Amino acid sequence: MPSGNERKARVLKGFRDYLPEQMILRQRIIAIFRDIFERHGFEPLDTPALEYLDVLTGKAGENEKLMYRFADAGGRDVGLRYDLTVPLARVVAMHGNDLVLPFKRYHIAPVWRAENPQRGRFREFWQCDADIAGTASMLADAEVVAIMAEALLAVGLSNFTINISHRQLLAALGRAAGVPEDLAGVLYRSVDKLAKIGPDGVLREMTEAGVEPEAARRVLDMVGVSGDPDSLLADLADRLTGSPEGEAAIAELRELFRLLPAFGVPAGCYALDLTLARGLDYYTGPVFEATVTEPKVGSVGGAGRYNDLVGAFLGRPIPATGMSLGLERIIDVVREHNLLPAPPTVAQVAVVILPTTVAEGARIADELREAGLRVDLSLQPQKSIGDQLKHADRKGTPVAVIVGEAELAEGRVAVKNLRSGEQRSYDRVELAPTVAAIVAE
Amino acid sequence: MPSGNERKARVLKGFRDYLPEQMILRQRIIAIFRDIFERHGFEPLDTPALEYLDVLTGKAGENEKLMYRFADAGGRDVGLRYDLTVPLARVVAMHGNDLVLPFKRYHIAPVWRAENPQRGRFREFWQCDADIAGTASMLADAEVVAIMAEALLAVGLSNFTINISHRQLLAALGRAAGVPEDLAGVLYRSVDKLAKIGPDGVLREMTEAGVEPEAARRVLDMVGVSGDPDSLLADLADRLTGSPEGEAAIAELRELFRLLPAFGVPAGCYALDLTLARGLDYYTGPVFEATVTEPKVGSVGGAGRYNDLVGAFLGRPIPATGMSLGLERIIDVVREHNLLPAPPTVAQVAVVILPTTVAEGARIADELREAGLRVDLSLQPQKSIGDQLKHADRKGTPVAVIVGEAELAEGRVAVKNLRSGEQRSYDRVELAPTVAAIVAE
Repeated sequence: MPSGNERKARVLKGFRDYLPEQMILRQRIIAIFRDIFERHGFEPLDTPALEYLDVLTGKAGENEKLMYRFADAGGRDVGLRYDLTVPLARVVAMHGNDLVLPFKRYHIAPVWRAENPQRGRFREFWQCDADIAGTASMLADAEVVAIMAEALLAVGLSNFTINISHRQLLAALGRAAGVPEDLAGVLYRSVDKLAKIGPDGVLREMTEAGVEPEAARRVLDMVGVSGDPDSLLADLADRLTGSPEGEAAIAELRELFRLLPAFGVPAGCYALDLTLARGLDYYTGPVFEATVTEPKVGSVGGAGRYNDLVGAFLGRPIPATGMSLGLERIIDVVREHNLLPAPPTVAQVAVVILPTTVAEGARIADELREAGLRVDLSLQPQKSIGDQLKHADRKGTPVAVIVGEAELAEGRVAVKNLRSGEQRSYDRVELAPTVAAIVAE
Repeated sequence: MPSGNERKARVLKGFRDYLPEQMILRQRIIAIFRDIFERHGFEPLDTPALEYLDVLTGKAGENEKLMYRFADAGGRDVGLRYDLTVPLARVVAMHGNDLVLPFKRYHIAPVWRAENPQRGRFREFWQCDADIAGTASMLADAEVVAIMAEALLAVGLSNFTINISHRQLLAALGRAAGVPEDLAGVLYRSVDKLAKIGPDGVLREMTEAGVEPEAARRVLDMVGVSGDPDSLLADLADRLTGSPEGEAAIAELRELFRLLPAFGVPAGCYALDLTLARGLDYYTGPVFEATVTEPKVGSVGGAGRYNDLVGAFLGRPIPATGMSLGLERIIDVVREHNLLPAPPTVAQVAVVILPTTVAEGARIADELREAGLRVDLSLQPQKSIGDQLKHADRKGTPVAVIVGEAELAEGRVAVKNLRSGEQRSYDRVELAPTVAAIVAE
């Protein structure tokens, strides 16, 4: 091939290949999440990567600006999905007759956002979402929080907190503190940064945006509290007497905190944190965010109730709640702390062959597969046995079966444990169980 | 919500949603394929949906024209991948140091082509590819054909044939028949249509493109034969004596047909068919195509050897071979003939609750999950038991557990078999095994 024809092999900034060793761990974590979603009766759903642009635009605020959008060959304005929530709303609108509400669905798939790439942030990344559309019951929110806790525990994370707040409670507190209605958005965004920029930073942001300093200070006093949810909520109920919105929000949170133990969520895994507002404009009720405290990687997932989005296509509200796990960040933590040790290769056995034992080697490989083993038959009988063993070892395959001519004539096959280096010969009839036992060691 | 704000819920032509019932079957078939790939020691790989345009353009001929391409926000020319083979070539070029050659990888993922949608043909569709890069050995081709046969048998297809041909053999036959070298492409394309347009159609196409009528007739005589591969190949060897390319191709096919039985491929599953040329320009050796004969759905997968593509980025040839299963068409066949009966919902048990038994119901649901069951806890305790049972039945859930107040006081729970209608009450300690037994019926 003339070298002038070379194309340069490269990937776009913010995009990545997942090589086998990474994929093995990814698939394992995805399988764990899927299993938990399904054990909660959540149904799988998938939707197109590409959608009409006007279907994707509407409710997502900031994220919309980051959308990959273009005109297709037919002149249609299209975009790559930037989340899995807008497609859910579209599906509920289009397939209402085929779906039974409340509809519990999960969706594990890539989304695309043209963000500035940085550590742990990519332009193509996977979301693992579990949502419930069609009920306003706090039972749904409790189940979603329970799934989140189960999923994080199942991949080996133990030091995490699911912080819980409520959009309407925050709004009511703002009003009670004297923040004008039209500055509610400022309030959410500023308060959400409390851990990052500190109380002075929040005060500065709010006053710069036009909130009276006194009002800003009152808000901070109310949201900055921590402790037992029941007593905090009782205290807030006193302050918000006469605010129907505040009282309703407090009633919802009380119900939610009452349900979580019944849903099996361990007591140390969640907390009331009124500084949590979450960025997206579409939340309308309780909001959740899971933060890993050790190692300090920050948010690994979140969500909340959004009662207006799913019905947007239908022109009537369909209450919904859900959660999204950040796969890439969770994988980073699991990998860095070796929480789920995974092998570097799928192969459990390498079958090493000679030019004269190819057919018999293929047969032996087939027998081992039938015994449930993952078998990498060598494709290089022309190479020495030593080279073939080296190849298997370099890949990280734990066991090799050597199909030699002389042994085969006696009905025997050599088995080499590549971890210990030990090699012994076995009768062919013992082969599969022997290899299975070494693999399982 | 004002109805003037409604966006129209719709999907792009050639794109589809996969609702739960379809997804349950899809995921099952994908799991079967993945299991077979992994049992053959093939490693999982994933690559970005979006690539630099110049990475994607080059070798794929027709398919390139169908690419979704655009300039991203940074002004880069990009495209959505239209196959999984070009990304494999890029990965081998970029990650050569992390990969051990020969590299066996599988990749199950969506690709995008702006084709004219028709029955069974979509603009977004999934490919299930298994390829081996880094060896010219026919062992690799045999393994790939074996995987294809195993995969089709595993999803319940039995009436299929993997037709096998060889690009260089066809080229040598063309030369021997007197077709000029520069019309070899015409020959591949015309002969490939034999089953569709008949011998007269093929003759017409070839002569119209400039092939001498006598030469065209000689080609048809040679490729139109059928029967035992060994004797056909012996006959062709006689005709091609003195053509080094023809002799090498025949030697490869002989080796391949000798290996297939050792790889466990059932005798009736494959045949030599010299009319098979396959469209893509990049094949260089044996080519395969699996055709289902009953029901007559045509090709469900194919592939072949392509020794130039994978090395294209490196400027040196890296021999490779592989196969691709057409997921959508396979699913169509499996569904139409109910080859893999799948439930309509993932949930195996619905837990029906009253306003007073919510917490206990959540606990029971958790216990059933711990016993390995997939449980759909009702989120509508305010509805009647009858309505909740109807909801579960409409979804297709086979069993319901009814958590009533009076029974609970006696430590008992009612279990209703929604298939038979039978209802009985059980002691709570017997609950999980009882439900598991009914589900397993």
